[in-house]
This record gives sequence, C-alpha cells and structure tokens, in this order.
Amino acid sequence: MTFKTDERSIRLYNLYNHLAFKLALYVAVWSFLFLAVFEKPAVPGAALPYWATMIIEACILIFFLSRFIHNVLFSEPASFWKDPKNIVVIVTIILVAIDMVGYIIWVNVTSPAVAAKAVRWSRPLRPLFLINFPEGRQLRKAFRNILRTLPDVVHILALFLASIAIFALLALKLMQNRSLVYPDGRPYFNNYFECVWDLYVLVTTANSPDVMMPAYNKNNWFATFFFVYIVVNVYIFMNIVLASVYNNYRRHLKNEVIKTVYLKRRLLARVFDLLKVWQRDTYVVTRQTWHSLMEIAAPHWGPTRRDVLFYVLDDTADNAIRRKDFLKVADLLNVELAEEKEEPTALENWCPRCYLAPPSEVIKSIVRHRFFHYTFDFLILLNAFIVGFNLEEAEWGFLTAFTVEILLRVYTFGPKKYFTTFWDVFDFCVVMPAVIGTIIETSLGDDYGRVKLIDFLMVIRVLKLVRLIGSIKRFQIVLTTIVNIGPSIATYGAVIFVFFYIYAVIGMELFSGLINYYGYDTKNETEMFCGDQRLKGSEFLQKRYCGNNFNSIAHSFVILFELLVVNQWHVMSSGFVLVTNKAARLYFISFHMICVVILLNILTAFILEVFILEYSLSQTELESTIEARIKDMGLGLGQNPGENPKTVKQDKHVLVDNMEEVEMSGSSPTAATSGDSCDVTAGAVGKQQDQGLRFRLKRSSRKRVETLLEYMFEGEIGPAEEGQDEEVITAGPAARTNTSSEMAA
Amino acid sequence: MTFKTDERSIRLYNLYNHLAFKLALYVAVWSFLFLAVFEKPAVPGAALPYWATMIIEACILIFFLSRFIHNVLFSEPASFWKDPKNIVVIVTIILVAIDMVGYIIWVNVTSPAVAAKAVRWSRPLRPLFLINFPEGRQLRKAFRNILRTLPDVVHILALFLASIAIFALLALKLMQNRSLVYPDGRPYFNNYFECVWDLYVLVTTANSPDVMMPAYNKNNWFATFFFVYIVVNVYIFMNIVLASVYNNYRRHLKNEVIKTVYLKRRLLARVFDLLKVWQRDTYVVTRQTWHSLMEIAAPHWGPTRRDVLFYVLDDTADNAIRRKDFLKVADLLNVELAEEKEEPTALENWCPRCYLAPPSEVIKSIVRHRFFHYTFDFLILLNAFIVGFNLEEAEWGFLTAFTVEILLRVYTFGPKKYFTTFWDVFDFCVVMPAVIGTIIETSLGDDYGRVKLIDFLMVIRVLKLVRLIGSIKRFQIVLTTIVNIGPSIATYGAVIFVFFYIYAVIGMELFSGLINYYGYDTKNETEMFCGDQRLKGSEFLQKRYCGNNFNSIAHSFVILFELLVVNQWHVMSSGFVLVTNKAARLYFISFHMICVVILLNILTAFILEVFILEYSLSQTELESTIEARIKDMGLGLGQNPGENPKTVKQDKHVLVDNMEEVEMSGSSPTAATSGDSCDVTAGAVGKQQDQGLRFRLKRSSRKRVETLLEYMFEGEIGPAEEGQDEEVITAGPAARTNTSSEMAA
Repeated sequence: MTFKTDERSIRLYNLYNHLAFKLALYVAVWSFLFLAVFEKPAVPGAALPYWATMIIEACILIFFLSRFIHNVLFSEPASFWKDPKNIVVIVTIILVAIDMVGYIIWVNVTSPAVAAKAVRWSRPLRPLFLINFPEGRQLRKAFRNILRTLPDVVHILALFLASIAIFALLALKLMQNRSLVYPDGRPYFNNYFECVWDLYVLVTTANSPDVMMPAYNKNNWFATFFFVYIVVNVYIFMNIVLASVYNNYRRHLKNEVIKTVYLKRRLLARVFDLLKVWQRDTYVVTRQTWHSLMEIAAPHWGPTRRDVLFYVLDDTADNAIRRKDFLKVADLLNVELAEEKEEPTALENWCPRCYLAPPSEVIKSIVRHRFFHYTFDFLILLNAFIVGFNLEEAEWGFLTAFTVEILLRVYTFGPKKYFTTFWDVFDFCVVMPAVIGTIIETSLGDDYGRVKLIDFLMVIRVLKLVRLIGSIKRFQIVLTTIVNIGPSIATYGAVIFVFFYIYAVIGMELFSGLINYYGYDTKNETEMFCGDQRLKGSEFLQKRYCGNNFNSIAHSFVILFELLVVNQWHVMSSGFVLVTNKAARLYFISFHMICVVILLNILTAFILEVFILEYSLSQTELESTIEARIKDMGLGLGQNPGENPKTVKQDKHVLVDNMEEVEMSGSSPTAATSGDSCDVTAGAVGKQQDQGLRFRLKRSSRKRVETLLEYMFEGEIGPAEEGQDEEVITAGPAARTNTSSEMAA
Repeated sequence: MTFKTDERSIRLYNLYNHLAFKLALYVAVWSFLFLAVFEKPAVPGAALPYWATMIIEACILIFFLSRFIHNVLFSEPASFWKDPKNIVVIVTIILVAIDMVGYIIWVNVTSPAVAAKAVRWSRPLRPLFLINFPEGRQLRKAFRNILRTLPDVVHILALFLASIAIFALLALKLMQNRSLVYPDGRPYFNNYFECVWDLYVLVTTANSPDVMMPAYNKNNWFATFFFVYIVVNVYIFMNIVLASVYNNYRRHLKNEVIKTVYLKRRLLARVFDLLKVWQRDTYVVTRQTWHSLMEIAAPHWGPTRRDVLFYVLDDTADNAIRRKDFLKVADLLNVELAEEKEEPTALENWCPRCYLAPPSEVIKSIVRHRFFHYTFDFLILLNAFIVGFNLEEAEWGFLTAFTVEILLRVYTFGPKKYFTTFWDVFDFCVVMPAVIGTIIETSLGDDYGRVKLIDFLMVIRVLKLVRLIGSIKRFQIVLTTIVNIGPSIATYGAVIFVFFYIYAVIGMELFSGLINYYGYDTKNETEMFCGDQRLKGSEFLQKRYCGNNFNSIAHSFVILFELLVVNQWHVMSSGFVLVTNKAARLYFISFHMICVVILLNILTAFILEVFILEYSLSQTELESTIEARIKDMGLGLGQNPGENPKTVKQDKHVLVDNMEEVEMSGSSPTAATSGDSCDVTAGAVGKQQDQGLRFRLKRSSRKRVETLLEYMFEGEIGPAEEGQDEEVITAGPAARTNTSSEMAA
C-alpha cells in the first residue's frame, strides 16, 4: 500500500481526488504551459510585462506546491519519497522558484545591457508537470518506456552513424579534388564535416537528388555511389532502426502492461481474501457480498446490471464467485454495458394516435427505405459540384432539403436514437450551423464581417462530403477504426507535444528575433533580406522561408512541425546557421534524431500494430464471454431474432475481408452502420425479459488506452497468473490502477 | 502430377533441367533485358543499328520458343495449358515476334517521316520472361501476392484519394479569391486540379513547406489547414495504407506458403505410401529403404550423414521412420549440415616438426591473443585518419602491417579455416587488392591511368574501416542479420527492378530526347535551357536537373531511382510537363502509387518483420531437434565441452538483449565472431566419434527465401496437417517444390 489507511488519510485522499481539484490541476498545468504565449518573445499582440506573467506563474506554482503537500499528508512517506515522479515534481518546483527570483534580480539589479540578456532557463522544465502529476499516467508510462528503449537501440544508432561517417570519408576522397561546386557556388564535398552533414541530410532524403547532381553531371558513374549510399542507409539502415526502436519499445511496453495486470490481480486477490467465505471445499464470494461490494464501488448501477456481472463471473453457476473469476472484476468493470429500455419515441408517447396513423407510417417507411438514403447521398455529391462551381444561389435549396431530411429522421427514429448515432449527430452539426450561418450571411449583406463567415461556411459545406464517405460501408469501417484508435495515438501526440514545447522554448532563447518576416517587397534597408544581410542570396531567402522563425511560441511550433515533416529541413537550418554559426546544426540534428527517428518511428510502428489489431480482430475474450452470458440470460437487445446471425462474431481470427460481414442489425441504414455499438441478437427470449431492460456491449470500451494495451498483449498474459510478489515493490505506486482507488474507498 | 511419367518424358525432363540449359536461359533472359542498352535511344557510345539488336533478339526468342516446346513435350497437356505462366510466355513470344516484323515493315516500307515515329511497343513486355520462366518462382509468387493484395487495399486507397479530393475542394474555396502567388509567380490554389496535384505532392512531403508559405505569410492561421491536412493524410492515412497493404500482403503470402507446405507434404505422403512396409502395427520406412532412397536423391552425401538424418527422423528409436516423421524429409534436406573433419592445417601435415615447435607455438598463441586483435583494430582506425589527412607516405607501412597480419593468421589457423571465415575473407579481399594496386600505382608514376586506380584504392582503403565495425560484437550481430535477410529482400529488389524496367522503357518512348544535358555554361542557342526554351526560368532548370532525363536506359534508371526516393519528384515531373503537357503527370503519379505506395511499403514492412524475426529468435524447431540429435550422437563439433553452455540456445523466445549472449565458441576471436555458423558443443562424446567426423548446423540455411518464409509462419502451420485434397488442383503446378523434381528423378 502506498497510502495510509487511517480515516483522516482516506478523507484527505478523497478530497485530493475530488473532481474540482483534478480539473483545477489540469487548468493549472495547461495555463502554466500557455504562459509562453504572453512571455517575451510573445505572440504578436499578446505580450504582457514580465511581472504580470510572473504573478500568474507564482500562483500556479503555489497551487502545485499545495497539491504536492496535500499528497504528502496521506501517503506512506517511505514509498512516497522513493517515487521518482514526486522527486521530479518537488525539484522542478524549487528550480522554477529559483529561476523566477534569479530573473527578477537579473532584470532589476544589473545594468541594462546585462539585463537584456536575462534568460528564463527553467521554462523547458515546464512540461515536466504535465508528465509527473499522477493524472498523466499514460504519458508517464510512454516516457518511461521511451527512456528504457534508448539504451537498447543506441548501438544500432551508433552503427548507423558509423556507416554515415565511413561513407562521408569515401565521398570526401572521391570528390574533393575534382573542384565541383553546387549550383549556388558552394564547394562540393571538400570538407569532412560538410560531407557528414550533407550525407546525414541525404538519409532524410531532404536534399535528394540535389546533392548528387554536380557529381552526376561530371560523370554519370557517380550515381552508383549515391545509389549504394541510399540503399544501405535509407532503405536498409533506417528500416532497421525503425525495427529495433519498435521491437524494444514494444518489449518494454509489454513488461509494463504485464506488471500492471499482475498488480491489479494481486490487489483483487487481497480484496477476495477479505470477502471470502468457505463454501463447498473452496473459498468463494457469495452473491450477497457481491451486491454489497457493488453498492459501494458502483452505486449508480441498478441491481439487474450487478446481476449480469455476477452471472458472468459465476462460472460454475452455483451462486458464488471463485478466486480465479474474481480476478477478472477489474476488466469487467472496464467493459461498458449500455442499459437500454425499448422505449417508444417521445412523439409516440405524446400523441400515439397521430404518430401511429397510416400516413405517418408511410412517411416512416419512406424514411427507412434505402432509396431515401441514396437520394440524399446523391444530393450531397451534387451540392459538392455546386460548391466547386460557385453557384451560391442553389445553396438555399440544398439547405432546405437537408433540414427536411433531419426533421424526417428525428420524427422516424425519435430524438433519443437520432442524437446518439454518430453519423446523425455529425450531420446535424454540419447542417445546422450552415443554415444559421447562411441566414446571418444573407442578413448582413456585403459587410466586412462576412469574409470570415464565408470561410467558415465553405469549410462546413465541404465537410458535408465527409458524410457521404460515412455512408459507404467499407469506408466506414476504416473511419470507425481510426476513431477507435485515436485516443491511443493521442498519448504519442502528447509525447511529441512535450518535446515540441521544450524545443520551442530553447529555440526561442537561441534564435528569436534573428530572422523576421517583413514581406519580400520592402525597400527599407533594415527590413531587406528578412532583417539580416547574411541571408542575401541564400536558398532560405529564395524559398521565402522568413516566416519560419522562432519569434513566438506559435511560430516555433509551426517551424518545428515543418521540421517534423522533414522535407527542406536542411534549408531551414541553413538560414539559422547563416545568422548564427554552424553549431546551430546541433539543435536541428538533435531534433531530427529525437522527434523523427525515435518518436515518429514509435508512432508509425504503433499505428501499424494497433490498426492491424483493431481492423482484423473483433472482440476480446472477456467481451465474448459477457456477450454470451447476456444472450443466455435473454437480456440481449435485438430487433429481429434470427435475421442476422452473423452479428455475434466470436472468431477472434476474422480476417479483414470478413469484416465486411460484421453488419449491425437495425432498421435505419444510418444507425445500422454507426459501427459504434455491437448489438446482440437475442436468440432465445428468457425469463427476465419482462423487465423491459436490455443490454448491449459498447464497442467504445476499447477506446481506453489501457484496455487496448492489455488487449494487445492478451495472448501473452496467462489468464490467472499473478506474478512474483517482489514485483509489487518494483512496480510501486506508479502502476496504480483504478482498483486501488476502489480499495481506498 | 504435372509431368508425364513415361521414360522418354523423364529423360526429356532431366535434359530440360540440365544445368547448362538453365544457365543459358538466365543468360538469354538477362541479355534480352540488356538489349535496351544498345537499342535506340541507346546509352551514349553503345548504339547499334536496329537490325543488329533485332538479330540478337530473334535468336533469344527462338531459344525461348525451343525451351517452351521442350517443356510441352514432357508435360501433361491438361495442366500445362491451364497454367497462366505458360500462356503468358507463349503469348509474349508471339507478341514480340509480331512487333519485330511490324517494326521492320514500319521502318523500311513507309515514308521517312512516318518511319521516324516507329515504336517498339513490345519492349515493356520483356520482364515477363524474367517472371514467367519456371526458375523465377519466388519472383512469380511475389507478383502473384501483390496482384492479389490490390483488390483488398483498393478501398483504403480510394478513401485516401477521396480525402485528398475533399481537402483540395476546401483549399480551393479558402484560397482562390485571395490572389496569392508562389515565389515564382505561379497562381496559388486557383484551379481544382492544381489543388489536387499540389496536395497529392504534399502527401509525399516533397513540397513541404513551400506549398504552405504563401498562405502562411498572408495569415498565420492558414498553418492550421496544412497541419490538419498533414496529420490526417500523411501521419494517419499513409500509415493506414501501409498497415493495410502489409496486412493483406502478409495474409496472401501466408496462404501461399501454407499451400506450398501442404503440397510438399502430400507429395511426400505419396512417396511414403510407395516405400512403406508393415512393421509392428504401423506402416514405416525402414533404414535400408531410407539409405537406398538417399543414394538416389542425394548421391553426394556420405553414409554417416544419411545416418544422422535417419536418427533425426527416427523419433521412436526403433530403426524405422513413421509417416508423420517422413513428412519432415523435405525440410530436413533444406537444413544445411556442414561435415567437418578436425584436420590438422596444411602446414602441420607438411612439416609437423617445425609447425609444432615451441617458437611456432609462441607465435600462434600471440596471434590467438585478443590484444593482437585489438592492436590491428587500432591500426585500422589510425589508418583511417591517415587517409583522411592525405598522408599517402604512411600507407606503405600500414599495408605491410596488414599483410603480415594476414600471413600470421593463415599460419595459425590454417588456410582452410581462414578462407572460410567471412571477416577473414573480407579482410583478404580488401588488403590484397590494395597491395597490388599500390604497387601498380607506384610503378606507373604520374600517368593518366592513375586517376581511376586512385579512386579504386581510396574506396578500398576506406572499406577497411568496415572490418573494424565487424570486430565489435554488437555491430556484428546487426551486420550478420542484414547479410542473412539479404536474399529475402532481394526478391523485392527484383520486383522493383521489373517495374523500373517497364517504366524506363515507357519513359524512353514518351520523353527521350526532349530534355538534354549540355552543361549550363553553353552559349549555343539550341543547347541553352537544356535544349528547350520552355524550361527557361523553371525550377527544373534552376536546380540543374537536366541530367535527369530519359535519354537512355541508364539515365532512365537513375531518374526512376530518384523518383523512388521521392524528394523533389514534383520538380522533376514539372520539367517533363513543361516540355510536353500536364498529362505527363499521370506517368509520375502512377509510378509513385505503384512503386512507392505499394511496393516500397511492402518492402518496408517485410524488412521490419524479417529483421525482428531474425534478430529475436535463434533457431527453428527443426534445427533445434537436429542439433539435439547430433549432440546425442556425439557427432557435434566443439572445442571445449562445458566452456560455453550458452551456445545451444533452444529457447525460441529469446529477446533482443539476450542475443548478446549467443557467443560462438572457438579460440580465434575473428572466427568466434563470424556469426555464420552455430557450433554445437558436444556435451558427451559418443560412440561414433572415432570416425573423426563432426557436424555443425550452418546458419546460412535460413538464407533461402522459402525457408525463411516457412519459418515466418511456423507457428501458424500445424505440424502434420496436409490440407484438403482439392487444394492440389488449385495450387496446381505453380506451387511445385524441389521435391517434385526428386520424385521425377
């Protein structure tokens, strides 16, 4: 246990985990990061004097400190002070405080010339708060795994760099005495370090084929050198770096996931030991105990739902849960079950006579017919052409048609169903703003405010095309998969954000104000060549890259994103080398190594793995069990038993082209293809159906990152293993799961 | 059976498979492809008149035809004419013949103006011979799988293109009325098809960030559009395309491999049925039968080796092979066993007295000491610096030292061992030419011929550094893995070569002679702007890309390789668009789609998978069995029993960092680290040791593509499954394996 268990501590724990405090922490952390917008060099128009940002910063810092002290109060000191994340938080708080005091002294006490050089050196540390507060668990895990991966891939990277070094020596020996020059007159491969730089850039393919052309034009056989270089370093080595980075990262990730699973199981085993009773030659948890437990752990669930879970766990059907089944509780709580009553629509309740009248039924059957759907798909396509050819007049007609469609669909399916179906909601969110926007546009006339509104309406109009894609089933599966894996990928997005922030802040300290964008037609002498004579005639200026600078956090993020895309990164770095010196290349190379070679490769490989996983498998083992149980109990939700027996897919090795067969049952084509839920066709209608309650498995449950990760390694974790006990200590408080909070409760 | 089994047919079959004929076929196919060097537009200096190349072509074609007819003679007509590859071969032969006759008529009969436009349209068909002759089995399989993969990924590609189309509409609506221009004055996003083109290029990142700069300079918020576009299309969609292409390709590959394995097993089962005798309530193959069979199938093997294999197969140790074990025969024959006698070195035989004398032993122990190794590693490094700083005088000293090292090592380990160790051979191949070259160089003096010799020596000198890398164990494992997976990757190299050839020939027909390289300082009017006024002021000319043209097959391959690397491909295509029209873009886009999006993605994913497989696993199940048997029989080759028990690694889930532990036993550090063999430490010295014969498993066996593929799917193929019989028909003759040739023999 990492927390004290006396009553005061539990009260403090609950207070600490109060939603308001958690929200406040998020706001504080993001505001802390957001301060860079207002600090020097600020985003144009947002500059604040340094004391203003410092006051905000001090307030946030005090909040962090109070939060930290609050945490100290209810934690076991021994494990608390052994946890690296707590150490990092308190050290960072102290460092930031020292930096703030130092900066104030620097600015106010020293001479103006010295004061102008004042540096807020603690700013790159800010993202540490994002990582190290307990709430950033996934992010912290990702960072920990990346750090652990590095030593394993260092020798591959070293080999890769050695290969570049050898090729650079070869290039130098082959080219240096041929007096070749680049088109802009720079000497060609006549200095070892320039060779290394040019060949490093070539590995990123950014200067291909320019770097080859002078030699190739001299003698065609030189193409062989570059061919061998590219095959060896780009196609073989870069792929091996990718393989190695990913293979090692995956291994550490697996260890981490397994550790978490084992810890969870051991904690549950302890709960089981507290609750168990002796019954028929084994220890079990009885039904009654289960209900009392659930009343504390999940008070918002009804008794039927608790029963469903109980039946799922009660493998032997003797009204008791055994130890090995009890260990599944945490996973079970993660599976989201939707409780649904088959209710009449709101309109049916309000006026059943008119809603069920024959004309109304005709309307409903028209709306439900697939040609209704096709007609509107065609209208959307037609609308796209209208938009493309600027025929604004026709827009009103389309908007009316789409509005009518929405009303008809709401009428037919009822507002509740309509507003819980993804593509219907999407449709609503696109058409309604378009209607409102067009009304405002028309009423405003040819005013100034229209310009931005028109942009907005353009985007909205084009977005309607996305709905067309959403109505083609093969596309939909892909889109649903993308939506499902989104959150898992977002973790890596956050990791990249952290590095972006650090590099942006360092970049601003190093390069801000050196290159400025004044337009390219200026005749003002100080403003020519983007404010620096040394850029005259450079490719940087020729390409008009002066807007790519580090003059504010927003500009920095844009240029860093461009560097992440890699193309032309050497031209951008050449600009900053010209206005400083060649050491600036270290900044750009290190960014490339960390963000592109390591992080982007992990991201790529992770997307590959997760996409293949999501796209080719349908359900986890647990989900299949639950579904089968729900079906057994006759609590499944299904309109037409026997109509579509393919719905329940338990074959875990369904290949991609079988995916097409996973059709959702349901009468509305849009609802049927929402892909967000997996209805269970109830084969036999059982005893409890009279309660009018139905359950279905929400597919969204897999969207949680932890669940997906466990699912990824499902085959490699034994079903009842609990691991060695000493692992509890090494796993420590970092691997805490939501079960620990249940226990403290 | 796809062959007739009468005696005449078998004689014809054996003649058909005679090595000389097979070699002649290879030479003919490659000469056929190589003809493009001499045909118009020929490589400068290699042009031949059309009748000269046509005579060669006709000869080759007649050879192909005779080969085809030969094949018809001994094949079962029913299956022969159902096999698509035979149909393709004969149709291609006919088409080429028609084209040749047509061309001769076209050139000689029509008017000169028409004759100048004569086209050899059958040339893109030439690589079909490479694919469709029976010897190109792996290549054919790769092509078949790629073709089968396409329908599965078409909807992902369609979605991807739809996404580009929607973003292009959005870009058009957002930008078209802002009168923005590119730095070179071209209009910016003002035409829908230009938008699509620019955004398609952006997906390849080739025009990032240039395509963004005009909008970004106008209003910084436009960066958001490009950010969203790149994240959605580059980072998400391209990765999903990669995942989908690979996932589907892997599935088809697996089916193909499984089919082959099943066919092989069924054929073996038939052999078993022919040879079986009834012995103790089961059918078996006796030892005697086994020996007679092996005498026919592998006459060059000694009886001990046959015995080893027999013991491996004789699972129940009752001198008989059961059916399920017999099915392993083909795999067993693929495992390469090295037969080694522990012989004294040549020198020891010749003069044992002086070789074994104390001074000789001292020399040998010095050479075997690791500091001897370290000293020469240091010398290589020092030599690299000397090369870097052009201190040519010191070179003689180094060459002498390296030569002495080679002599000492040959003396100590014996020439046989020395010349079978990879890194020693490498060393020899680098040092000896350097010695010879330097001698020639010195004797030639300052002559003209020196220049090329110096280049050659430079390369050789720098290559020595590779040996240094080879002496660091962690690097070596990586290099060995690369060497091992080389042949598997070469298949994909061949696939890419086929597409390169087709695109090169088409490219030459479309674009040859339109852009010429005359140097950039010419004042000759017809030679300015690379021979076309329309290129004036274009980025193509500015970048000096005129050497990148389609004026010969060699030039075409270079530009296609540059297109494969992707960077600046839009600039290259813009040049050819300027001298023709915008339809030329189709050529470049289709090349990108096929070669980069499909082929390169398959290659990348395949390298990833194979590298992780090779790098993390050590042996197949069969190899482990054989090794264990060899060990049991006391026939293993090992210098120091018990010295390094880690050598035999049977754990199939060894993770990467355990790989370091796979050390080879042996006294020479270079030999010990060759990584090419896996010596088996014989724990107990058994009965047959007195024969002086030892075996070890050659790791090189895994280098065969088929073996590696089977290994890849090892876990997914049941050990004794034979599949359904109807699969024989569908698998047909295409899935023939080397066992079928055994059977025919």
